Amino acid sequence: MPDKPAPDASRRSEKSRRAIYAAALALVAETGYPKTTIEAIAARAGVGKQTIYRWWPSKADVLMEAFLDLGEQAAARQEGARADRQPDGIPDTGDLAADLKTVLRATVDALFDPAFEAPARALAAEGLVNDQVGRQYVAKLLQPQLELYVHRLRSAQDTGAVRPDIDPRIALELFVSPLAQRWLQRTAPVSYEYTDTLVDYALHGLAPR
Amino acid sequence: MPDKPAPDASRRSEKSRRAIYAAALALVAETGYPKTTIEAIAARAGVGKQTIYRWWPSKADVLMEAFLDLGEQAAARQEGARADRQPDGIPDTGDLAADLKTVLRATVDALFDPAFEAPARALAAEGLVNDQVGRQYVAKLLQPQLELYVHRLRSAQDTGAVRPDIDPRIALELFVSPLAQRWLQRTAPVSYEYTDTLVDYALHGLAPR
Repeated sequence: MPDKPAPDASRRSEKSRRAIYAAALALVAETGYPKTTIEAIAARAGVGKQTIYRWWPSKADVLMEAFLDLGEQAAARQEGARADRQPDGIPDTGDLAADLKTVLRATVDALFDPAFEAPARALAAEGLVNDQVGRQYVAKLLQPQLELYVHRLRSAQDTGAVRPDIDPRIALELFVSPLAQRWLQRTAPVSYEYTDTLVDYALHGLAPR
Repeated sequence: MPDKPAPDASRRSEKSRRAIYAAALALVAETGYPKTTIEAIAARAGVGKQTIYRWWPSKADVLMEAFLDLGEQAAARQEGARADRQPDGIPDTGDLAADLKTVLRATVDALFDPAFEAPARALAAEGLVNDQVGRQYVAKLLQPQLELYVHRLRSAQDTGAVRPDIDPRIALELFVSPLAQRWLQRTAPVSYEYTDTLVDYALHGLAPR
């Protein structure tokens, strides 16, 4: 590609990029990661496979970017739908329990969104057995989300809502990981009532006060 | 097979069953679930594939039984090694925090046992994208473990160590799911100190008391 593509070329590129993302996500959802090949993505997107190789070094890279783009689109839709949503994803109204419940309810909506669930599940499954995909999945998809919780819990420590000796990176797992496991492994149903309960148990503990 | 095999036939069967389990576990660890076929298991175990079909209706059944057998062998080894271990897997010394920490430390040992980790990870990955395998994985492998925690938390409710309004099936996830997610998705390192911390946070909560 030239360094500065003409406007028409740029529009064509954007259209190809969208078609490639859509094809990659549809294929991984339908056939799983191992059977999703650059050739199949190119055929479904109606582009030559050299077009894909020119932009991405491997199928893992195409899929991860397609998936990140999907997440950004979903976040943009949610921000449109929820006027109260903070730009960084986790509100800080001063009421920690309420804020965490709001975010976990939105996470439930996102996880079970049909456009998101099947490709997310296929990529997560591959990440369990494929180190490269697993590392990218964690670094690019999970870690940035977890950082938002670390930030919100630190702010709660500043106001005294969370004990100062708590490690926020571990603490967030008390409500994030149960939801992740129910979604990933389908160990039990998920509801808003369930995620609300996780927040209450995590903040107040299981032992009597 | 005759209803009552002669002792020699029974010994031969037991030997074949062991060889089939070992072959199935090795193959799923090396090549993943989709490429593990009855034909490949039979070839590696040195038996005819009719021998496998005579005992198990599908490869999912062979693998799940091989895996359950592996878990039972590991549990038996641990029981041999730990004289203080309770038959039901979770001790009840009256000190809930100590008992949960003991069991989670043993779980860490089991999850990272080389004989267990690769096949467990391969089966868990398939369970995320294959409903039949996922349901069997949950029902046969996870659910019986989770029931032990429900039982122990109910006993803690009887003695007042856990609040009576807590739902034990949700409560156990505050310390079980974080470990499961770190192991499955390799989101962060696992240590005894980490699982001890999970128990303390879950019992006492993140908010000041």
